[in-house]
Amino acid sequence: MGKLFDVVLLILILLSVIFVMVESVRGWPPEVYDYLYYGEWVITIFFSFEYIARIITIKRPARYIFSFYGVIDFLSTIPLYLSFILAGSNFLLTVRALRLLRVFRILKVTRYIGESNKLRKALLDSRPKILVFLFAVLIISIIAGTLMYIVEGEESGFVSIPVSVYWCIVTLTTVGFGDIAPVTPLGQLIAAVIMIMGYGIIAVPTGIVSAEYVKSTGSSKIDDSDYVHVNSQSCRNCNAKKHRDDADYCHKCGTPLHPEDIF
Amino acid sequence: MGKLFDVVLLILILLSVIFVMVESVRGWPPEVYDYLYYGEWVITIFFSFEYIARIITIKRPARYIFSFYGVIDFLSTIPLYLSFILAGSNFLLTVRALRLLRVFRILKVTRYIGESNKLRKALLDSRPKILVFLFAVLIISIIAGTLMYIVEGEESGFVSIPVSVYWCIVTLTTVGFGDIAPVTPLGQLIAAVIMIMGYGIIAVPTGIVSAEYVKSTGSSKIDDSDYVHVNSQSCRNCNAKKHRDDADYCHKCGTPLHPEDIF
Amino acid sequence: MGKLFDVVLLILILLSVIFVMVESVRGWPPEVYDYLYYGEWVITIFFSFEYIARIITIKRPARYIFSFYGVIDFLSTIPLYLSFILAGSNFLLTVRALRLLRVFRILKVTRYIGESNKLRKALLDSRPKILVFLFAVLIISIIAGTLMYIVEGEESGFVSIPVSVYWCIVTLTTVGFGDIAPVTPLGQLIAAVIMIMGYGIIAVPTGIVSAEYVKSTGSSKIDDSDYVHVNSQSCRNCNAKKHRDDADYCHKCGTPLHPEDIF
Amino acid sequence: MGKLFDVVLLILILLSVIFVMVESVRGWPPEVYDYLYYGEWVITIFFSFEYIARIITIKRPARYIFSFYGVIDFLSTIPLYLSFILAGSNFLLTVRALRLLRVFRILKVTRYIGESNKLRKALLDSRPKILVFLFAVLIISIIAGTLMYIVEGEESGFVSIPVSVYWCIVTLTTVGFGDIAPVTPLGQLIAAVIMIMGYGIIAVPTGIVSAEYVKSTGSSKIDDSDYVHVNSQSCRNCNAKKHRDDADYCHKCGTPLHPEDIF
Repeated sequence: MGKLFDVVLLILILLSVIFVMVESVRGWPPEVYDYLYYGEWVITIFFSFEYIARIITIKRPARYIFSFYGVIDFLSTIPLYLSFILAGSNFLLTVRALRLLRVFRILKVTRYIGESNKLRKALLDSRPKILVFLFAVLIISIIAGTLMYIVEGEESGFVSIPVSVYWCIVTLTTVGFGDIAPVTPLGQLIAAVIMIMGYGIIAVPTGIVSAEYVKSTGSSKIDDSDYVHVNSQSCRNCNAKKHRDDADYCHKCGTPLHPEDIF
Repeated sequence: MGKLFDVVLLILILLSVIFVMVESVRGWPPEVYDYLYYGEWVITIFFSFEYIARIITIKRPARYIFSFYGVIDFLSTIPLYLSFILAGSNFLLTVRALRLLRVFRILKVTRYIGESNKLRKALLDSRPKILVFLFAVLIISIIAGTLMYIVEGEESGFVSIPVSVYWCIVTLTTVGFGDIAPVTPLGQLIAAVIMIMGYGIIAVPTGIVSAEYVKSTGSSKIDDSDYVHVNSQSCRNCNAKKHRDDADYCHKCGTPLHPEDIF
Repeated sequence: MGKLFDVVLLILILLSVIFVMVESVRGWPPEVYDYLYYGEWVITIFFSFEYIARIITIKRPARYIFSFYGVIDFLSTIPLYLSFILAGSNFLLTVRALRLLRVFRILKVTRYIGESNKLRKALLDSRPKILVFLFAVLIISIIAGTLMYIVEGEESGFVSIPVSVYWCIVTLTTVGFGDIAPVTPLGQLIAAVIMIMGYGIIAVPTGIVSAEYVKSTGSSKIDDSDYVHVNSQSCRNCNAKKHRDDADYCHKCGTPLHPEDIF
Repeated sequence: MGKLFDVVLLILILLSVIFVMVESVRGWPPEVYDYLYYGEWVITIFFSFEYIARIITIKRPARYIFSFYGVIDFLSTIPLYLSFILAGSNFLLTVRALRLLRVFRILKVTRYIGESNKLRKALLDSRPKILVFLFAVLIISIIAGTLMYIVEGEESGFVSIPVSVYWCIVTLTTVGFGDIAPVTPLGQLIAAVIMIMGYGIIAVPTGIVSAEYVKSTGSSKIDDSDYVHVNSQSCRNCNAKKHRDDADYCHKCGTPLHPEDIF
């Protein structure tokens, strides 16, 4: 029963996202927009009831409301109601924009996929490293962007430092739209250096995540249970080191390691 | 004999693919198109006989027909015959399109390469993880695409949410055609965030496959079940060393290694 | 107290960078440029005092001045003063360019982030390998660039070998601006080979860094010298198991493990 | 002495490459081209003498001449002489093209870098796997290219299947020039699938090389000498398996494994 409800909910979420996406396309017959409008209202009302039902039935409503999915559930229902309150011809476009925010509803989908946890964990584990890395990328982009702004100037499309930094990020990430491109020889030389640099440093986050993954999966066969931790204590008789942490006698000469404990 | 047939088949498949590709190019003399047409018919008839011969000679024809290669073999022969049945001047273009489907014939080539199995296995093993990852990429694209549609609007080429989502995938995957590019400062800022995000998360599938590969190849000898760990104990009779950890008798002279345990 | 000063400094550095970036954008009201000009002067004077204070208070000033951060601190203060000395209408643009160099001040930010050390070490460790790799990329680019210059010629935008080499780097690094693109069939074929080659060799630096990282993090317990391999032999006296491979006496009761070897 | 000669040679090679690259740029004063022409002749004559000297002084000249570097050395000297023989105004362009081949001379540089050997070995080791992978990429490109040709047609720039395949390679490798881009909704959908696919499979060669590298560097501590190969022979007395390859007696019961050899 609960499973059926989840599947229906999933289909409604997908339908709703498709409705918003289709509605944004121009050129359909006018009645299509009407049907989509009614469809969106039906789904929105259903989601509103579902949201209220969740709050009523759950033990700690506050915990749900301020949780990640609680906020998403709220954001998924509110935009269409807001389009009522904010009436006025000049607000029409903004209202439509608010309605589009209901696309956030699709995030509900992930709730039903449990396999993503491992992936999320791997991303979270390597997040600090990746953040430091991205910070370095940003600094390089700001400096290289300034350089390109000075070298290329406004004729080549590098109209300001922020735009140059934007171009630099486009280039470093190897996206390369080509809406702005260097035309002077010096600019092209600097661009080549930036690109090769980006080519070299793209390896860093990949290496980090790879290592994180390899570490988490481990080398299968080598069973940890065949290895024991040893300490740096040395035997007072034969000076042998690296005894097992739970050792009472030296493994080399059989002398008690902790006479005070035993006798 | 069978090997010669396979080589001839391989050459014919390659020739056929080249014929279709060459035929699609405009500007050859008219007789070239005629020769290509005849060539395609000869190869198609040969493939048809081969397909029928396979069905007749194989023990379980049904199993072959509905197998991966059976379907490809069928799709490789049918388009040219279809161009007969669907006669009519207004269907000409569609017919040419159906003929192009014969390019699927090239998939036959992979049948003759056995080395690809390992690669396919590695891809299949990490498929669920990659699918979850690609699903996350799609959700990010839909949300970011909607955001860009609201921010940039139709003047910048972001004419609808589907087109914006398409642009987002182009950007996240670092392809960056540049046919659509943000022009407003806020749009460029969001684009920069999307690109850096894409730069950071491209590491995830790479890390997954790397870990999968490292796990499967293992650290040289260790993962191999044909190797066992040996210890430094020496036999009191023949002084042979490196006995298996679970050895009771010397592998060189048969003397008990732990007489106290046995007798 | 010292921490508060650092935070204030960090905010001032960020403010200053934002000021320079905002100033480069055209279209603000004239008074905005005035405010930014005054703001930059205030921050520059503050940084100048800070720089002098550092030199006075530090034991070995010479060591600081010629250190990485000493040079950056100096470069962060000097451009605005230089804009005074190099007065003259025809030098105005250059002066503005020098002022933009103060963006280097942002490099100070990294000083306050300690976590970046590990990342820097990983990059430094794999630097020689990546340099050899990038050298190979450069040679490929020069040869392939010359080839494209001969094949495509000046009509397609490949106006000289340096420009062709620039295009080749843009393509090999998968940036692909599209400002220059091959139009002849042979040029497109060579471009396809270059791209597939670039696709294949992008794996090399990634593999290098991954291996470097995996090596440094190690496979859990195995690489750790604090762990020793134990075998399944059991003591004939107390039945304790998991003795070190080189153990002569039981670590639990001190009984000889191989009496025949000792007596 | 020999080292000095190598350094001079290296500088001359670099100079020569720079000369060819500079000469291809239009817009210098006419005398610059003259100087470059004389410079190229001086270096060519020096290289010719060096080539002849090598052949005379080396023990087995034939082995050098047909070696990788012998062929490069020959290709580095010949183009300028060829420009003499092939005189004639209509051959001028071809001659210039031949002269550009002297860029191959830069490959000499690699001879002086010994550190590249390890990198080359890693690439060679994973070459078969990468080749199979690239073959798969090519098949995908041909099929997807045909699909795009049918869907998009000639109005969008997909003028023939070879051009569509070229576009597909540009897209799959995430280069994305943007000279050709899909405009129909279905074409953009297929393009999105191709891009996400390319994003997913770029992980494969990276994973291969990473695993190859990790394997070659190995997990330091685990000494292979602590492991021995065992075979599948079973003891006729106790049925114990996995005996050392050089074992004469069963390690479990002490029964001779090869009675016919011993008695």
